[in-house]
Amino acid sequence: MSDASQPVEVTASIYNEIPPPPFEIPYPDRPEIITENLLKLVELTPNPRLKFIFKNLVRHMHDFVNETSITTDEWINTIQFLTRVGQTCTPIRQEFILLSDVLGISALVDALNNPPIHGATESSVLGPFFTEDAPDVAMGESIASEGKGEYMYVEGRVLSTDGTPVANARIETWETDSNGSYDTQYSVRDQPDCRGRLQTGPDGHYGYRAVVPVPYPIPGDGPVGDLLKELGRHNMRPNHLHLMIEAPGHHKLVTALYPDGDAWLASDAVFGVKKSLVVSLKEVNDDAEAKKRGFPKGGSFKLIQYDIVLVPQEEARAARERFAAERAKNAVA
Amino acid sequence: MSDASQPVEVTASIYNEIPPPPFEIPYPDRPEIITENLLKLVELTPNPRLKFIFKNLVRHMHDFVNETSITTDEWINTIQFLTRVGQTCTPIRQEFILLSDVLGISALVDALNNPPIHGATESSVLGPFFTEDAPDVAMGESIASEGKGEYMYVEGRVLSTDGTPVANARIETWETDSNGSYDTQYSVRDQPDCRGRLQTGPDGHYGYRAVVPVPYPIPGDGPVGDLLKELGRHNMRPNHLHLMIEAPGHHKLVTALYPDGDAWLASDAVFGVKKSLVVSLKEVNDDAEAKKRGFPKGGSFKLIQYDIVLVPQEEARAARERFAAERAKNAVA
Repeated sequence: MSDASQPVEVTASIYNEIPPPPFEIPYPDRPEIITENLLKLVELTPNPRLKFIFKNLVRHMHDFVNETSITTDEWINTIQFLTRVGQTCTPIRQEFILLSDVLGISALVDALNNPPIHGATESSVLGPFFTEDAPDVAMGESIASEGKGEYMYVEGRVLSTDGTPVANARIETWETDSNGSYDTQYSVRDQPDCRGRLQTGPDGHYGYRAVVPVPYPIPGDGPVGDLLKELGRHNMRPNHLHLMIEAPGHHKLVTALYPDGDAWLASDAVFGVKKSLVVSLKEVNDDAEAKKRGFPKGGSFKLIQYDIVLVPQEEARAARERFAAERAKNAVA
Repeated sequence: MSDASQPVEVTASIYNEIPPPPFEIPYPDRPEIITENLLKLVELTPNPRLKFIFKNLVRHMHDFVNETSITTDEWINTIQFLTRVGQTCTPIRQEFILLSDVLGISALVDALNNPPIHGATESSVLGPFFTEDAPDVAMGESIASEGKGEYMYVEGRVLSTDGTPVANARIETWETDSNGSYDTQYSVRDQPDCRGRLQTGPDGHYGYRAVVPVPYPIPGDGPVGDLLKELGRHNMRPNHLHLMIEAPGHHKLVTALYPDGDAWLASDAVFGVKKSLVVSLKEVNDDAEAKKRGFPKGGSFKLIQYDIVLVPQEEARAARERFAAERAKNAVA
């Protein structure tokens, strides 16, 4: 029951106990002063990395608003769009990652954190479909249940950049079925499917059965889907097989392999494809080969052969720092 | 009932029917190519204004990510922060506007859309507490119910930039009570309070009773409150009286008056204060003056006297375009 004589505040508005800044800031009588004041206030940030990030964020955001003279209505629409993006997120759907993906930011962050190193396997975007519950799969076993798509076998070695085979590397792998859907996209998901966790043998070899993944549209029924339409851009990803490889002493690699020939390969909606990750999908028509790889019906199957080259931790760190230092030249320190 | 043999897709992933771009784009094997590809794709945007905005948005966002070499963890944290901002929004709370406010973007958008014009009243941020249901208040009446705070009277004229009084201008005005709360912040709100809608007389005069507003913290219990703490910034706004004035042939003015002497005046958390909007709050100790202005108990009251100067529509438009053209010089066309 409410007591009208003593109304309760709904919005918890509590002073955070931080005093006014210990320096004078002028009234923002011109737009430039708003930006200058913000940059002065950013100097109060205790964490130096956060200070550096916000200094550059404020500068770019304010330059953007200035250069485009965003109107009040345009800004209200932007606020409403971002609100819808946040409110479209659920425990199984991350619309802000999708927004980051289609604006190339996920790919850019990935590229900066995983600079190309001669001979090493390049990275690709993680995407929103990784789960923690992939089943352990022994060498040669299948990650896909029967009937999920056309047979495919994936095999190769995990090596270090110096050519040494990496034993006991952990490979997580996941993919769509022949409908272009991940297991998590079905309302019924009794157990994981089209995903698995395996380990390389003593000689660095790995091999597993899977199905041929197919291209698929990223979710088009939310605000990001609406945005792509307004931008005149399709929402397709080429077919691909996700891989995440971890081994002691090596930089964790998140990547994907993209079978050649897909119509969407050159215009992946999320900018994930790199040339070195495009693989040939060999057609094998040989009962003996099929049976050797454990396909129960024998006959034909598709084959991906790919050696994965991991970067030693220290080498990866040094490359990242070199990359970051080069790019920081244009930043405000 | 679910039918496990025919699982239903949860995520509606539908191809949007837009074909691949009619030009070649290279694989993004280097970070720079991701940005270049994005900019090529932006050329597909049918709406020229949206194309211009996105061209500059992509450039600034990618430059920001490059220059700061945002790490994967930092980006995940950012995604999670933005998701929380969206999910903190309710029909009566807009956390994205609050984020825009504390980052100075609301003030900047306001400044660009309302360039200063000699002699005209300057604008200030709208804020999240305007409502459509303010009651009509006759000249001299009160917008605040009895007991909401210290008596204040607000009076002046509405003029055009050439000095002509503007009759029948509509003034919307709203403010906090002596708790620093707007009526919408209480769980019980039988009717609007501390807000009203009035009209100027034939000579452009306006006058109404109100209460002295008090400084207040913006909501500190959500992600934006957390951010301000991390940035070492307080969350206070100086006390102020909101005004929104509309008159035929004139540019709509959204502004606020800021009584002098407030401790938070120089460091308003949302960058709303301009020098010309700082007003003196006169102490009047005169029974006759108090009764003339309708204060039932007579005695002392505070007085704000302020002439509001509106800008003719065409003059405001021309100033906005001049402002925008100057700032667009640094933009990518």
